[in-house]
Amino acid sequence: MEHHAQHDPAAQPTDAARGTRAADWNQGRVGLWLIGARGSVATTVAVGVHALAARVAPPTGCTTSGPGFAEVPLPGFDEIVIGGHDLSTTPVGQRAEQLAAAGMIPPAIVAAVRDELDVVDAEIRPGYDPTTHPGSQAEVVARLAADIVAFRERNGLAHVTVVDVSSTEPLPADRPEFHDPALLAAAIAEPGVVVLPPSSIAALAAVEAGASYACFTPSAGLGLPALRAIAQPRIAFAGQDGKTGETLLRTVLAPMFVERGMHVLSWAGANLLGGGDGQTLADPEAVRSKLASKTRGLHSLVGEHVVAPLHIDNVPDLGDVKTAWDHVHAEGFLSSRITLQTTWTAYDSMLAAPLVIDLARLLSLAGAAGVVGVVPALGSFFKDPWGSDVHAFADQATALKSWAADLGEQVAVRDAAAAVERSEDAAAPAAEPAPIGGVR
Amino acid sequence: MEHHAQHDPAAQPTDAARGTRAADWNQGRVGLWLIGARGSVATTVAVGVHALAARVAPPTGCTTSGPGFAEVPLPGFDEIVIGGHDLSTTPVGQRAEQLAAAGMIPPAIVAAVRDELDVVDAEIRPGYDPTTHPGSQAEVVARLAADIVAFRERNGLAHVTVVDVSSTEPLPADRPEFHDPALLAAAIAEPGVVVLPPSSIAALAAVEAGASYACFTPSAGLGLPALRAIAQPRIAFAGQDGKTGETLLRTVLAPMFVERGMHVLSWAGANLLGGGDGQTLADPEAVRSKLASKTRGLHSLVGEHVVAPLHIDNVPDLGDVKTAWDHVHAEGFLSSRITLQTTWTAYDSMLAAPLVIDLARLLSLAGAAGVVGVVPALGSFFKDPWGSDVHAFADQATALKSWAADLGEQVAVRDAAAAVERSEDAAAPAAEPAPIGGVR
Amino acid sequence: MEHHAQHDPAAQPTDAARGTRAADWNQGRVGLWLIGARGSVATTVAVGVHALAARVAPPTGCTTSGPGFAEVPLPGFDEIVIGGHDLSTTPVGQRAEQLAAAGMIPPAIVAAVRDELDVVDAEIRPGYDPTTHPGSQAEVVARLAADIVAFRERNGLAHVTVVDVSSTEPLPADRPEFHDPALLAAAIAEPGVVVLPPSSIAALAAVEAGASYACFTPSAGLGLPALRAIAQPRIAFAGQDGKTGETLLRTVLAPMFVERGMHVLSWAGANLLGGGDGQTLADPEAVRSKLASKTRGLHSLVGEHVVAPLHIDNVPDLGDVKTAWDHVHAEGFLSSRITLQTTWTAYDSMLAAPLVIDLARLLSLAGAAGVVGVVPALGSFFKDPWGSDVHAFADQATALKSWAADLGEQVAVRDAAAAVERSEDAAAPAAEPAPIGGVR
Amino acid sequence: MEHHAQHDPAAQPTDAARGTRAADWNQGRVGLWLIGARGSVATTVAVGVHALAARVAPPTGCTTSGPGFAEVPLPGFDEIVIGGHDLSTTPVGQRAEQLAAAGMIPPAIVAAVRDELDVVDAEIRPGYDPTTHPGSQAEVVARLAADIVAFRERNGLAHVTVVDVSSTEPLPADRPEFHDPALLAAAIAEPGVVVLPPSSIAALAAVEAGASYACFTPSAGLGLPALRAIAQPRIAFAGQDGKTGETLLRTVLAPMFVERGMHVLSWAGANLLGGGDGQTLADPEAVRSKLASKTRGLHSLVGEHVVAPLHIDNVPDLGDVKTAWDHVHAEGFLSSRITLQTTWTAYDSMLAAPLVIDLARLLSLAGAAGVVGVVPALGSFFKDPWGSDVHAFADQATALKSWAADLGEQVAVRDAAAAVERSEDAAAPAAEPAPIGGVR
Ligand SMILES: NC(=O)c1ccc[n+]([C@@H]2O[C@H](COP(=O)([O-])OP(=O)(O)OC[C@H]3O[C@@H](n4cnc5c(N)ncnc54)[C@H](O)[C@@H]3O)[C@@H](O)[C@H]2O)c1
Ligand SMILES: NC(=O)c1ccc[n+]([C@@H]2O[C@H](COP(=O)([O-])OP(=O)(O)OC[C@H]3O[C@@H](n4cnc5c(N)ncnc54)[C@H](O)[C@@H]3O)[C@@H](O)[C@H]2O)c1
Ligand SMILES: NC(=O)c1ccc[n+]([C@@H]2O[C@H](COP(=O)([O-])OP(=O)(O)OC[C@H]3O[C@@H](n4cnc5c(N)ncnc54)[C@H](O)[C@@H]3O)[C@@H](O)[C@H]2O)c1
Ligand SMILES: NC(=O)c1ccc[n+]([C@@H]2O[C@H](COP(=O)([O-])OP(=O)(O)OC[C@H]3O[C@@H](n4cnc5c(N)ncnc54)[C@H](O)[C@@H]3O)[C@@H](O)[C@H]2O)c1
Ligand code: NA
Ligand code: NA
Repeated sequence: MEHHAQHDPAAQPTDAARGTRAADWNQGRVGLWLIGARGSVATTVAVGVHALAARVAPPTGCTTSGPGFAEVPLPGFDEIVIGGHDLSTTPVGQRAEQLAAAGMIPPAIVAAVRDELDVVDAEIRPGYDPTTHPGSQAEVVARLAADIVAFRERNGLAHVTVVDVSSTEPLPADRPEFHDPALLAAAIAEPGVVVLPPSSIAALAAVEAGASYACFTPSAGLGLPALRAIAQPRIAFAGQDGKTGETLLRTVLAPMFVERGMHVLSWAGANLLGGGDGQTLADPEAVRSKLASKTRGLHSLVGEHVVAPLHIDNVPDLGDVKTAWDHVHAEGFLSSRITLQTTWTAYDSMLAAPLVIDLARLLSLAGAAGVVGVVPALGSFFKDPWGSDVHAFADQATALKSWAADLGEQVAVRDAAAAVERSEDAAAPAAEPAPIGGVR
Repeated sequence: MEHHAQHDPAAQPTDAARGTRAADWNQGRVGLWLIGARGSVATTVAVGVHALAARVAPPTGCTTSGPGFAEVPLPGFDEIVIGGHDLSTTPVGQRAEQLAAAGMIPPAIVAAVRDELDVVDAEIRPGYDPTTHPGSQAEVVARLAADIVAFRERNGLAHVTVVDVSSTEPLPADRPEFHDPALLAAAIAEPGVVVLPPSSIAALAAVEAGASYACFTPSAGLGLPALRAIAQPRIAFAGQDGKTGETLLRTVLAPMFVERGMHVLSWAGANLLGGGDGQTLADPEAVRSKLASKTRGLHSLVGEHVVAPLHIDNVPDLGDVKTAWDHVHAEGFLSSRITLQTTWTAYDSMLAAPLVIDLARLLSLAGAAGVVGVVPALGSFFKDPWGSDVHAFADQATALKSWAADLGEQVAVRDAAAAVERSEDAAAPAAEPAPIGGVR
Repeated sequence: MEHHAQHDPAAQPTDAARGTRAADWNQGRVGLWLIGARGSVATTVAVGVHALAARVAPPTGCTTSGPGFAEVPLPGFDEIVIGGHDLSTTPVGQRAEQLAAAGMIPPAIVAAVRDELDVVDAEIRPGYDPTTHPGSQAEVVARLAADIVAFRERNGLAHVTVVDVSSTEPLPADRPEFHDPALLAAAIAEPGVVVLPPSSIAALAAVEAGASYACFTPSAGLGLPALRAIAQPRIAFAGQDGKTGETLLRTVLAPMFVERGMHVLSWAGANLLGGGDGQTLADPEAVRSKLASKTRGLHSLVGEHVVAPLHIDNVPDLGDVKTAWDHVHAEGFLSSRITLQTTWTAYDSMLAAPLVIDLARLLSLAGAAGVVGVVPALGSFFKDPWGSDVHAFADQATALKSWAADLGEQVAVRDAAAAVERSEDAAAPAAEPAPIGGVR
Repeated sequence: MEHHAQHDPAAQPTDAARGTRAADWNQGRVGLWLIGARGSVATTVAVGVHALAARVAPPTGCTTSGPGFAEVPLPGFDEIVIGGHDLSTTPVGQRAEQLAAAGMIPPAIVAAVRDELDVVDAEIRPGYDPTTHPGSQAEVVARLAADIVAFRERNGLAHVTVVDVSSTEPLPADRPEFHDPALLAAAIAEPGVVVLPPSSIAALAAVEAGASYACFTPSAGLGLPALRAIAQPRIAFAGQDGKTGETLLRTVLAPMFVERGMHVLSWAGANLLGGGDGQTLADPEAVRSKLASKTRGLHSLVGEHVVAPLHIDNVPDLGDVKTAWDHVHAEGFLSSRITLQTTWTAYDSMLAAPLVIDLARLLSLAGAAGVVGVVPALGSFFKDPWGSDVHAFADQATALKSWAADLGEQVAVRDAAAAVERSEDAAAPAAEPAPIGGVR
């Protein structure tokens, strides 16, 4: 059977808020804590969640609103509460108005959720700036974790998912502490010493707060071996670097060449973008991590021999519109020349935001199921999937749907059993739900 | 695990001839009978089969040479014998030289197989030309079938596969005979009456001769209901219209939009080509069937609402190089605009030829297994797959590999059993292999 | 000397209203009468003229604001008064708001000129609809001409230029009246008879009213021989079909191939557009005139042999954004293959509107100078230039600047002489300015 | 009048050899001395000149074969003798066969001129390799100049033109000697000291030998101020860096935006190429000079504000086919967005070779006319035109034709006068032709 697109613009806004709750979510409201909460992606997430909750826009662009997820019990858009950390002090509402003026978000949608954006902004706390913080990094972790816990308690949330959408950092030089949890613990306890980059401090805070975590950037985050070892038994997590544009296309197209026995010789790429991300990536140090994560999948799919020059240029006049041109040269039958060019143009944050919402919904489900450790089944969302070698998008999409369906069923069965038990023994105190083993 | 491309140009030519015979093919030589045997695709097939057999070229572009087929017992390239029907009298060898002069086939490869092309040409018989044939169409069917049977016997072939790669025909106007085998049998028995288009006559001849059949064109072929009913219990068959360029890309890309919940609004296409096919498709009647088969999959994948203007232009100066430009407009998150352009450039016959060889190998296996009826698992080869609604290429590729693996295993088990039986009862006469039920 | 772009966004809005009045315009306010005054192009013209007059936008996109025109006395943007004919009753202000909502015109600009749009709308009169008008076509001409004269007198205008920006019409079948002014006069005098298409009736009205006239569409307009003969001694006029996107590019690029001795073999094109024009051109009759005028220049530039398939598709979801893809195949040195692809994307009306304003300014100058007859020097504005064989854009641009400079000088000299005379003989009545011979 | 393409493939080969000698060239055979004579461009020049002379190919791609040059007395293709310097020892004939095997030059053309290529190769002398030469650079200049003079005398040539088509060098760091001829003379006289890069040594040798000189690369060549001062009174020269692909397109397209008052905001470019030039430009030092010369014209044409990221990537599998993608973003009327993408694909040496031949013919004419100093009228051939600020291609093309016409007329008049004088005074010795003043 084919996955037909279903899109009835009249009907969708009406159903938007409950998302895919054909199967009901019984766990209560959940939190989405954004690192970089006043950035372009985060602002689009905030506008979007409230627009979908208010049914003023359909959930176009959300993976979890597709037919494959209809039976999976995921939190509705109106059950997601947003907060986060940022260094910027420009309020989310004002940023949204700027994005509307630049032609990215329809002004009517921003207007419709303007009040909710102020509520979000009130849940944003100062992030970690290593240039101004005097104490130990362990203190910072504790402070950030406390912010997350307070957010959870203040809002009565069943679960919180942290998603890092802050500015891409330069990759730190390797050091022994990155490979040894004990060494690391000692190092970050020393005052005035900077061991970890901010993204890793934020990731540790998520672990500390017992929140699920997704790394949407190519920064170090939870990717350092010592951090992954710490997180593995404690929280569900996934990464790394959102797969939204050129890289998505590549992992869709490359398997075609392979299936057809064509030999890809080169795959060159040019990316033009402005906006905040363009500015950050104009820094040759910062861009290095991005370029590496963009190329890894390609090599894995078509072979290490492929010649793959890749550039990201900051073109401020393009604003938030990103244009990516790729040129593929493959050898076909009897050495014949095959070329493919693709030009992809989109508002980058509009591609990223629905995936952040998808991750929040899916990691909430994982949290409800007691899943801990890396979640390779979320690989379709990332350029550089943690815990997996699979880059081919179609394979990833299939794996995601089957994982979500299984998990949803387990949660539903457990909830049903608990309901029976509750009705049998109404006086007994609510037990912590047992973690579901199969998915660890 | 990822399907890594494996391509060691030094090693491959050496292994080329045995194709994927990691698992051994025990059935003897097989025939590939081409309708349109002196056309561009057919000539490329003839050059290619002999170049691969002679190990002067690697099997780049062949699906069945990929890793997924290593365990499937398929005939080697040196076990394929080629013949066919055509109206043209330009010998295959001369056509190959023209294609080399035009820059399509490397001259050295044509030179290396020049003698074998004369052997092929000697196996080509006159096709059916309705404008000059005076008798009944039933007589034509009998004559064409006799050509195929004689080819099989003359060359001692275990099995013959007929592949139609003749010029695209205009689609015939519907008539009651197309829906009723009895009516049809009566009609084609009448002398001087033209009921069926040539492609359908050729298809009937394949059925009559007990050959497998694949329809690589958008012509009527075996696609008419009455013909399919006749063929269903007698031969293995698949169709229709080779999926090689723009349409392949579309069925690779469209599922991406669907998985990501994006709403495809329009998908416009422009095709420029010269060569024999360009000339044929310059006829507005002939092009209609091609345009229809190109668009069907798109509608199935992204929905009937999609606006999909499509043009095929004959641009003689481009020769056999086809260039296709597609422009996709999708709606993303919060109604944001996403556009994708693709430009695909390749020698069209170089894309088609390896698929024709793949079909010959796979339908030989089906023949050896006694499969009869439509084979939906071959859908990845066609724009308009018979017996299947699945157009998404990744899903088709998965289905193909699993079908081939199953079938290969059944044949191997049966052959092993037969070998044991033969060694036990060496004097008994060889029995017709029993058809394998599961795959009917 | 190079024509450097000069663009100081801070400075320009301040200077915008006076346009290029480095050289002063002394003739008073002028009128721009638009056929199709409530269409997309016309609405953009109305918004634009008032935005430039109010200095809320720089004159980007206007040819006559470039450095080559600094010394030419042209009316300022604040000296242009707009009116016109249309069949639609949707007010210009409402249409502008729709175009702003669709993302075409910045909402702030529409808001800034909202009152002026109502003033424009009050100057719009019903156009000619052949399906409802009962009397003779001569009566219609008289009624439309009276509308123009009344507009001129009501607003005290020195001169009126009529620009046809109404929906493209199917080309009428040829008839003797189109070639003989006397026959034509007799035919349109008969009640109830429809001889001329609406665009030609509008053009005759311009002649009747003594207004200059420009034909921005591929419709018949003033292009019929009999009409051109009538107009030649009475008004200045130019045409035909605004050269804005793909055709502009072609007449820029084609001369490059010619200068370099490359042999252009084919030039294929695909145009995708929505909006009002997309809808009109979806009619195969209407599109024929457009396709013809788009191809004529190409043939003239690179030779009649060129293979030039061209398509215009109505893709409603693209709205007013037009995307044109061209594929050029040229033969270079030693028969080598050269290909060029171009993809042009823009809001079509945003390309057209400034040219309409340029035409109004330049034909006002011609009117002030007493020029009559066809003006080939305006050829750079048109796909199908009247009175000229020159299509190469650079040559046209040079010719335009030199014509405008000459004319401006003549007007300035004459005005200076008149001023001297006036001061000498202050009591004498103002004489009609003498037509300037050289430019007829 | 339009410059119609005239191309009658049947007729042209017949007329090819005499090139544009509608007006007759009376000066005898001329020499073309190539620095880098065994490179890809040079080999294509050698094949091409002899193919055109032998009339086996039409002069497609040659500027001087266009209609604007029909009356200009230029040497015919059969009057050009080729020699040169190179470090490589692979004979030209062998290089030509490699280029044919790679699909660039038609094998039949190489075969037709195979003997002539050996004659060319016999005229090639070792170039200057600073890593192995022990003496002073002045000695090298003398040796190279002697090679050129010997070539002229051996072949009885009326004039020699040196064209530098050797590998692009890194730009040398500035030093006082580059600005002061006297200092420079002293420095290069010192044994074992390397002051000038090889391209400048070759240029000095051209001056020393009294040959005209064109710099087809972005290397220093004759571009250093001290060298230009030395050359100015002695030889005709022009440069720099052949304008063949992306840059040609840019200088054709940029003026369009300027004429139409559009404001170009960014112009990004990606170049993919293999071959010898690809390999050279993979060196970040070497590529710097190329990138600089590619961008200069753009800034001059559309303004210094333009954001213009540009990349050249070495993609060996593409061989000699170069693909360039450009993305232009311009602001149009009322701040509307306009984008243009271009993809240009061609064999780079096939674009360069005819221009090298054009330069040889035109500088031969200049030599015959006694022109000395920089020739700005040859600017259309170069990315970075010496002696001129004009980059707009159409303006350059006009200037070239008018310069050539004037010069041709002067030479013809002088020759006619000389003929009269000769017939009058048959016994008098032939005088050195007087330099023609107007063009200095
Ligand atoms: N399609 C996409 O947009 C896409 C895809 C993949 C990855 N990403 C990544 O998402 C991230 C966000 O992109 P964006 O366009 O929103 O960028 P942005 O510049 O608009 O926003 C980044 C935000 O992070 C904040 N920030 C910086 N350092 C911080 C810190 N130490 N703690 C907390 N906040 C901090 C900044 O103040 C800013 O508000 C980038 O790393 C980008 O590479 C985006
Ligand atoms: N990528 C591809 O090349 C591709 C993809 C899909 C489908 N196809 C289809 O494959 C077919 C062949 O394409 P081609 O490029 O080789 O075309 P072609 O014109 O080069 O060859 C067609 C051949 O069919 C022969 N023929 C015509 N009528 C016949 C008849 N009644 N009986 C026997 N032979 C007959 C012709 O004489 C000719 O030799 C076309 O229908 C095309 O649409 C090709
Ligand atoms: N870049 C460009 O936009 C461009 C370039 C060249 C030519 N043109 C031409 O300009 C014209 C206008 O384009 P548009 O996009 O504004 O189209 P549109 O459909 O938005 O507007 C056309 C207007 O003409 C009016 N009209 C129709 N018949 C009329 C009549 N008999 N009398 C008076 N008014 C009448 C319609 O009611 C409508 O308001 C078209 O013919 C188009 O082909 C446009
Ligand atoms: N379209 C074009 O091809 C184009 C356009 C503009 C400029 N150019 C320039 O033309 C030049 C030649 O390009 P190509 O593709 O032929 O490169 P190539 O590498 O094929 O040839 C360069 C030749 O120069 C020779 N050489 C190197 N150093 C030398 C020296 N000191 N003296 C003499 N010879 C020397 C090399 O041995 C080689 O044979 C390059 O600098 C390139 O940038 C080419
Ligand atoms: Na991984
Ligand atoms: Na210069």
